[in-house]
Amino acid sequence: MYPKKFEELKECFMKLPGVGEKTAIRYTFKMLEKDEEFLKEFANSLYSLKNSVKYCKVCGSLTDSDVCDYCKDTTRDKSIIMVVTLVQDVEAVEKTGSYNGMYHVLNGNLNTNKGIMPEDLNIDLLLNRIDPSIKEIIIAISPTMEGEITALYLTKLLKNKNVKVTRLASGIPMGASLDYTDDLTLSKALAHRTDIE
Amino acid sequence: MYPKKFEELKECFMKLPGVGEKTAIRYTFKMLEKDEEFLKEFANSLYSLKNSVKYCKVCGSLTDSDVCDYCKDTTRDKSIIMVVTLVQDVEAVEKTGSYNGMYHVLNGNLNTNKGIMPEDLNIDLLLNRIDPSIKEIIIAISPTMEGEITALYLTKLLKNKNVKVTRLASGIPMGASLDYTDDLTLSKALAHRTDIE
Repeated sequence: MYPKKFEELKECFMKLPGVGEKTAIRYTFKMLEKDEEFLKEFANSLYSLKNSVKYCKVCGSLTDSDVCDYCKDTTRDKSIIMVVTLVQDVEAVEKTGSYNGMYHVLNGNLNTNKGIMPEDLNIDLLLNRIDPSIKEIIIAISPTMEGEITALYLTKLLKNKNVKVTRLASGIPMGASLDYTDDLTLSKALAHRTDIE
Repeated sequence: MYPKKFEELKECFMKLPGVGEKTAIRYTFKMLEKDEEFLKEFANSLYSLKNSVKYCKVCGSLTDSDVCDYCKDTTRDKSIIMVVTLVQDVEAVEKTGSYNGMYHVLNGNLNTNKGIMPEDLNIDLLLNRIDPSIKEIIIAISPTMEGEITALYLTKLLKNKNVKVTRLASGIPMGASLDYTDDLTLSKALAHRTDIE
């Protein structure tokens, strides 16, 4: 048995996703090597996380004030809303530099097995945002099983809202080879083939 | 970009061994899901780690007082010292339940590439422990390149100390198949073959 305080920290690390006992022990030994100053900094970051990081009241993304930087940004196109599953997805889209509209984060996908129902997702807030100034809603949900169900549910909800609803294209990833692409993706790519301009 | 405090905690997680940006982000999101109480507990463990966890003054293992539980334990055989590289090795040997002697933790192996020299290891303390009451020193260092060099160095040091020095046996791991065992291990296993009793 390791000393009590060592075990305590190990137990905390074991709460991290995908971290078992061996990894937690490695992490704790690493912390023993670090100087006091770093440990204080780490501890303070944990202390202040919940108080300083909140969900944006408009789009559900992360922010340190009430409304996030994307929603505050006056240079962005307010007539398009991209609906994503997680905050991480917002960052992924931002990195591409190809989008300059607004976001809406659902904070999860529907999943009846895990008991995630429509009322658990950030859907009401999305419906409230739709007014005549909104021209397009882009559903940018991953084409997984749960993602497809969530996208279908949203599409039905938005049908009578008198707004154009689009989805991200499915197809062969750039750089991938055709013979390693799965059947479903290949079928989608064929069905949604584009004209060569 | 994520909020400032989110990024700060992410940076701390990235200091953990083998943790890149993606994993650090996953860890930080997990922390956002946890309640205030857990975060405080985690922070407190980090705060108090350095003050409460020390190295044992006798054997170099971890302890929360000056001398570790193994060194204090009067039921253990004080005439045998097992020399290991890391504190983790002590725990590994303890788990087997096959050893009831004392330990000595070197806290590393010799490694000229990384600049780890004899004076960086816990060797002087080991030499000081050797008196006529000590009957055997078991060198339980992993048979890696650095381990072999360290073991050789120690063996030479201990030669004129008038104490029996032994090493853990090298050979085929239990449950392994012969044709998958590497040449060196197989040669060692042959050279150190044992009589069937």
